Amino acid sequence: LPNKLPTIGTSIFTRMTQLAQQTEALNLSQGFPDFDSPPQLLEALKGYTSQGFQQYALMQGLPALREQVALTIQQRYGWLPDTATEVAITPGATAAIFCVIQALVQAGDEVIVFDPCYDSYDPATRLAGGMCIHVPLQSDFSIDWQRFKAAISDKTRLVIINFPHNPSGAVITLQDLKTLYDIIEPYNILVLSDEVYEYLVFDGLMHASVLGLPELAARSFMIGSFGKTFHVTGWKTGYVVAAPELMQAFLKVHQYVNFCGVTPIQHALADFMQQHPEHINQLASFYQAKRDLFCQLLQPSAFKLLPSRGTYFQLLDYSAIRNDLDDVQMSQWLVHEHGIASIPISVFYEKPVEGQRLIRLCFAKTEATLQQAAQRLCQIA
Amino acid sequence: LPNKLPTIGTSIFTRMTQLAQQTEALNLSQGFPDFDSPPQLLEALKGYTSQGFQQYALMQGLPALREQVALTIQQRYGWLPDTATEVAITPGATAAIFCVIQALVQAGDEVIVFDPCYDSYDPATRLAGGMCIHVPLQSDFSIDWQRFKAAISDKTRLVIINFPHNPSGAVITLQDLKTLYDIIEPYNILVLSDEVYEYLVFDGLMHASVLGLPELAARSFMIGSFGKTFHVTGWKTGYVVAAPELMQAFLKVHQYVNFCGVTPIQHALADFMQQHPEHINQLASFYQAKRDLFCQLLQPSAFKLLPSRGTYFQLLDYSAIRNDLDDVQMSQWLVHEHGIASIPISVFYEKPVEGQRLIRLCFAKTEATLQQAAQRLCQIA
Ligand SMILES: CSCCC(=O)C(=O)O
Ligand SMILES: CSCCC(=O)C(=O)O
Repeated sequence: LPNKLPTIGTSIFTRMTQLAQQTEALNLSQGFPDFDSPPQLLEALKGYTSQGFQQYALMQGLPALREQVALTIQQRYGWLPDTATEVAITPGATAAIFCVIQALVQAGDEVIVFDPCYDSYDPATRLAGGMCIHVPLQSDFSIDWQRFKAAISDKTRLVIINFPHNPSGAVITLQDLKTLYDIIEPYNILVLSDEVYEYLVFDGLMHASVLGLPELAARSFMIGSFGKTFHVTGWKTGYVVAAPELMQAFLKVHQYVNFCGVTPIQHALADFMQQHPEHINQLASFYQAKRDLFCQLLQPSAFKLLPSRGTYFQLLDYSAIRNDLDDVQMSQWLVHEHGIASIPISVFYEKPVEGQRLIRLCFAKTEATLQQAAQRLCQIA
Repeated sequence: LPNKLPTIGTSIFTRMTQLAQQTEALNLSQGFPDFDSPPQLLEALKGYTSQGFQQYALMQGLPALREQVALTIQQRYGWLPDTATEVAITPGATAAIFCVIQALVQAGDEVIVFDPCYDSYDPATRLAGGMCIHVPLQSDFSIDWQRFKAAISDKTRLVIINFPHNPSGAVITLQDLKTLYDIIEPYNILVLSDEVYEYLVFDGLMHASVLGLPELAARSFMIGSFGKTFHVTGWKTGYVVAAPELMQAFLKVHQYVNFCGVTPIQHALADFMQQHPEHINQLASFYQAKRDLFCQLLQPSAFKLLPSRGTYFQLLDYSAIRNDLDDVQMSQWLVHEHGIASIPISVFYEKPVEGQRLIRLCFAKTEATLQQAAQRLCQIA
């Protein structure tokens, strides 16, 4: 049996969620909400459990849902993507990421990623015959542009960015995106911009998207997630926005990987987006309130909180508590001894940072869960 | 921009379904039912539109649905797969096929396929860096074992079979599967068995599955489709059964391609399968009645019907009508002049058969649709 991903085991999300279930710990590891999905969205899905909506969707996705995506982009970035050639619906953002990489990366190509990064980028690149060049983010999780520049070679085909950033919650500025564009402009390098947390940006900051800079948009695949935005991670539905030529390359792969997404789900999302624009508008403050509550509750604890400006993740520095443990050990200790499932962030690095003592907690949880979690965490001295 | 699938355009299914919509033709091209899905299945989905079922499923799939798959296998083949290590749920059979190929095929590897074959096998193999060796089926769409043997090389990693066979409706016998096993036994060759039409076998024949031969099962990935079996192609849910070591290789890829399928859909399928075993038991006769009706209605036509022993497809030989047209031209002519969308089977071949005059029609349709289609087809002289 060939082993195409020899260094890869079962992903941290599967392992931690299972461990949380076995130990009956509070599951603040894998990123998903434990609160209600919008009732009107579930009503909408209920409406599409009738006859007539249960066969194949179009390969590129339901036109009405592509239309809704296009309208959000017009509203935010001032231009309307062509739904026929620039928007596609996928069975999840992970599938979209995989297909972009498969469409672009050939044997020997290099893909630049910034560590810590989501755990699918590297295996997806290797499966395409390419190799990731891992550039560490700075200690505040911003990009070191000099290091990025130095990482570019004539084999560089793609750079993957992810802001708001999982696992740190760092955001990016439009100025940074301009810098990115200026650096790649002379090269034949494309951008995969994983923006699944695009609506979760706090403290009055604006989300900076590749779609906000026309010249960068022309070279980019922007990836979004209905699951994250509408509190339905189990619906596994995402989208891609890209210029027509890029979209064509993407669809060629998508049609043989998944062919299409789930029909009733796409209908429900399209209706809900059309009828409830307020959901998206309130999302940042909704999540900011959760972050604020969680941070406030953790003030008395011995953990040090790093700034989280977006996503639904909060990094905790535990060096004052168990500096003897690396983060994998710490996260084991926390789940077994204190009933809290977390994600050790070293799993998101090619080379974990020596002495870094950070775990990731998901605050996309009810107040009750956050309170219970904070109580447990505050008891640890 | 690299072009990793230079010979590939938009798939025939997308093109014909769109053409059918534009021309308001009867769509007998892409394989999907136009009749009701089981009302109790839709009821079940409705039940899972409540809170509590909308977040990520387990990566390997809902345990209750894996359990139902395992039970059907026990019933049919007399052994119970281990749901923890031998069964996985995927977002569609196409995704399952893609991930098996990605898991096994390395640069330079060869995959043997039998033409005509489903259009995803070859591009999926090429994306993995491999190459398909296309072995033509015989004129009755059975495998020529001598040609198969001759196609094996020391680069052969995988052979893909698909019975009941799309597009011909041919079936395979257990004896054939034994022959397959005997031939590959000395080699390090695995089998991908695309059995999405496993329940659609007619004329009192039994479906022959790789799972019915323990020694072959140990080397095989068996792929099934809830969409085809339960009249819900838009639910995009399939499954894989494989020995633990093979399943592990598969899951490594699946977790970075799709991660998991849709949660409420998996719950609904699990409940329905548990509560309505009669659905599966009646499926063959349900579809056989459709085939019989369609064939009977087409008796007076100038088309010659080839035998269809399974699937929901019927091949029509049109040589007595428009022998001057190849099948792509014929299918264009039929949709534009006679309002019938069909699939030209040459698209399923690496090298179309000189002079072959066959189109594929899908009879997974209501009686009314079949009658209307037959009426149109009978008027063509
Ligand atoms: C697909 S499971 C991972 C969910 C997620 O985005 C995260 O926890 O980082
Ligand atoms: C995924 S669209 C193709 C459906 C199908 O199996 C067919 O028509 O052959």
